[in-house]
Amino acid sequence: MMSPETVGPITNYNYGLPSEWRKSLLQRLWDNKVYGVAMTIKKIGQDDPRRIVHGLKVGLAVTLASFLFYIKPIYDRFNQDGIWALMTVVLIFEFSVGATLGKGLNRMMATSSGAALGVGIHNIAFRSAGSNLPGEFMVLGFFVFTIGAICTFMRFIPALKPYDYGLMIFILTFSMVSVSSSRTPDLRKIVIDRILTIIIGSVIAIVVCIGICPVWNGENLQNLIANNIEKLGNFLEGFKGEYFHKGEYFPKSEDGQPLDNKPFRKGYKSVLTSKSSEETMANLARWEWQYRFGFKHPWKQYVKVGALTRECAYKIEALNSYFNFEFQAPYEFRSKIQEQCTQICSETGKALKELATAVKEMTKPTSVNIRIEKSKVASQKLNVLLDMILLEDYNLREIIPPAAVALILIDVVPCIEKIADAVHELAYLSHFKTPDSIVSP
Amino acid sequence: MMSPETVGPITNYNYGLPSEWRKSLLQRLWDNKVYGVAMTIKKIGQDDPRRIVHGLKVGLAVTLASFLFYIKPIYDRFNQDGIWALMTVVLIFEFSVGATLGKGLNRMMATSSGAALGVGIHNIAFRSAGSNLPGEFMVLGFFVFTIGAICTFMRFIPALKPYDYGLMIFILTFSMVSVSSSRTPDLRKIVIDRILTIIIGSVIAIVVCIGICPVWNGENLQNLIANNIEKLGNFLEGFKGEYFHKGEYFPKSEDGQPLDNKPFRKGYKSVLTSKSSEETMANLARWEWQYRFGFKHPWKQYVKVGALTRECAYKIEALNSYFNFEFQAPYEFRSKIQEQCTQICSETGKALKELATAVKEMTKPTSVNIRIEKSKVASQKLNVLLDMILLEDYNLREIIPPAAVALILIDVVPCIEKIADAVHELAYLSHFKTPDSIVSP
Repeated sequence: MMSPETVGPITNYNYGLPSEWRKSLLQRLWDNKVYGVAMTIKKIGQDDPRRIVHGLKVGLAVTLASFLFYIKPIYDRFNQDGIWALMTVVLIFEFSVGATLGKGLNRMMATSSGAALGVGIHNIAFRSAGSNLPGEFMVLGFFVFTIGAICTFMRFIPALKPYDYGLMIFILTFSMVSVSSSRTPDLRKIVIDRILTIIIGSVIAIVVCIGICPVWNGENLQNLIANNIEKLGNFLEGFKGEYFHKGEYFPKSEDGQPLDNKPFRKGYKSVLTSKSSEETMANLARWEWQYRFGFKHPWKQYVKVGALTRECAYKIEALNSYFNFEFQAPYEFRSKIQEQCTQICSETGKALKELATAVKEMTKPTSVNIRIEKSKVASQKLNVLLDMILLEDYNLREIIPPAAVALILIDVVPCIEKIADAVHELAYLSHFKTPDSIVSP
Repeated sequence: MMSPETVGPITNYNYGLPSEWRKSLLQRLWDNKVYGVAMTIKKIGQDDPRRIVHGLKVGLAVTLASFLFYIKPIYDRFNQDGIWALMTVVLIFEFSVGATLGKGLNRMMATSSGAALGVGIHNIAFRSAGSNLPGEFMVLGFFVFTIGAICTFMRFIPALKPYDYGLMIFILTFSMVSVSSSRTPDLRKIVIDRILTIIIGSVIAIVVCIGICPVWNGENLQNLIANNIEKLGNFLEGFKGEYFHKGEYFPKSEDGQPLDNKPFRKGYKSVLTSKSSEETMANLARWEWQYRFGFKHPWKQYVKVGALTRECAYKIEALNSYFNFEFQAPYEFRSKIQEQCTQICSETGKALKELATAVKEMTKPTSVNIRIEKSKVASQKLNVLLDMILLEDYNLREIIPPAAVALILIDVVPCIEKIADAVHELAYLSHFKTPDSIVSP
């Protein structure tokens, strides 16, 4: 321990801490906080470099919008109303094209209609009250309250969800225009200037968002759905290798790694809870019409495929739980069902992976049906086997886990068939390409 | 069929449709569209009357904010800047107190700091470029681009998620102030007026939101978690009644209703996908500090209870799938495991319902531990039974489903125990009350 005598001169600033301590405090602060934060930021950028591009795009769009102030002729036209263009850019510029387009179109439509209604209500109030300002305010107040309340309530109607932002901007513009109308000398010019600047801002945001490295929600949704299907395929193939393995099962797996750490046992977990992101993406992708996948791209069908994938994931979760039972079924029993079970795992796993590729690359799946037929045959054989096995020599508790696994696998096959049907329908609806080289089954 | 002769006079307006048809078209439009929409709206209001109250509250807040225009002395002070108060009210007024508070505080802080930085950057640009406007614009443009890009990227940092809205408003205010600065004669007054009006708007929104029938996110989260736990309890109790039933199982249930329509078989499904709403609510509830549940209410613990509930729901999903197998196990086999299985279902179901009540009413659960102990005893007995059953007389495929159900029920018990432990921890952390009348187990 250090004695106080060895400590350097004490000033008011180091609170009596020895300089080594101060140094190490700074060092620790650096190690724990600053360095950690820097690493987090680096990781966020590395995980998805589109995030860095997005930041630069927003910076560019804001800079472009600020030219409404920098360039004299434009400034002379719009004056301080240029801030509405700036505001619009910052408020509507989102990461994906769908979100930006949705907000931009909502904002333009809602501003125009809200302003028109505001001017209309101003006229009613002005005519009904004449030059009597308090009377005019009462009429205005009545309409602002009523329309504000009704539109706010309308935001709860599920069918209007895509126009939620528009409804808010409608209330905003309507109340701003009508309330300030009686205090504004040249209402018409101000309203038109604001609508124009908001359109300019929206157009800047949309053009930059689409023009530079666009992030399409439709693509993201496609990838999410495809990756989810692939994760289930990975599980089934991994499960085959680990569960129907010759030797000791726990706690090590075939390659000596602890089984809990196997990536296939964790990968599918995200499928269980991806419902809300799939639905959000599908809703936003609807705004990306025409530009990317044609006018009537069947986004709902993607959500349907996603939902069927999730239903299958619940069965996978049940399969996964059988890793937790000690696997003591005699090898002789296991070997009886092993062949058909591995056949089902293998064929359904490969079918899922092919479906994932089909969704990702928008090509028609070719050998999926054959694989599913094979897994159906295997599941029928397994059914017959389960009927034939004589039970005299076994202990019930030992044989339930592998037998239940077999039953779940039989149950997984129709699940996969449903996913395949939904993907086939998707392929038909979205005109998936026929792959150049037909893969032989 | 009607002949053309029986049709009334044809005008340009009815497009040659007979008047009966026109009537029935209108009638159909009414029946299908208008009436349907009216019913939807009525249902939305009835399902949650707080939505109607919310609409009225927003109407009131907007009306209050518009007094900045109606009252002469205030209008003389703020002039057209009153619209910033209106805008703030519309943009930050959310359904729940947490969301409104979060947005309001974010907006006030971000506006103040963004405006301060904007004024600072204006000074730098003005001093470095002198009266050379293009030079000043270049300096301003550089800072607007850089700070816009950096702050936009910062919105991707997970730790800054609660301040996401603030970051956007920061970019907005900073760029608006700095860009317009060189074109604004009295920058200081305008900036101070805007900050003041935004604070006025935020305060109006927050006061109305909290003052009139407030909707607390914390309460909503509590109810969601409690209801989810209750749904699992309902399933287990319903499962006991239907699966371990004496007579024929399919397609009718005990009371003659089709088994698929039983509410307990659908209720728990929403638990599987409630992750994102739980997390959103917990994040928003954090803004409701002090006011409702004290400063350090353990919202994270609610999320933890929710996650454990969901894990249990996956097991319930597996149990539910066993309704789909034809139940042909001989009664003699079922009767062997029936007693312990119904005991587990009954005790865990009651335990879950008591835990739900505890979370909802913030009282300490009293008899849960006893129920869990009882279900543990039953699950041990069941284990022993499964070891002892002699299998000679049975067919494997017939007995797997009930045997697998037994195994899952054994597996459900530790799940329920984990939920109970997490609720006990929650009760300790949030100082749940001891109930007045101790319920005997």
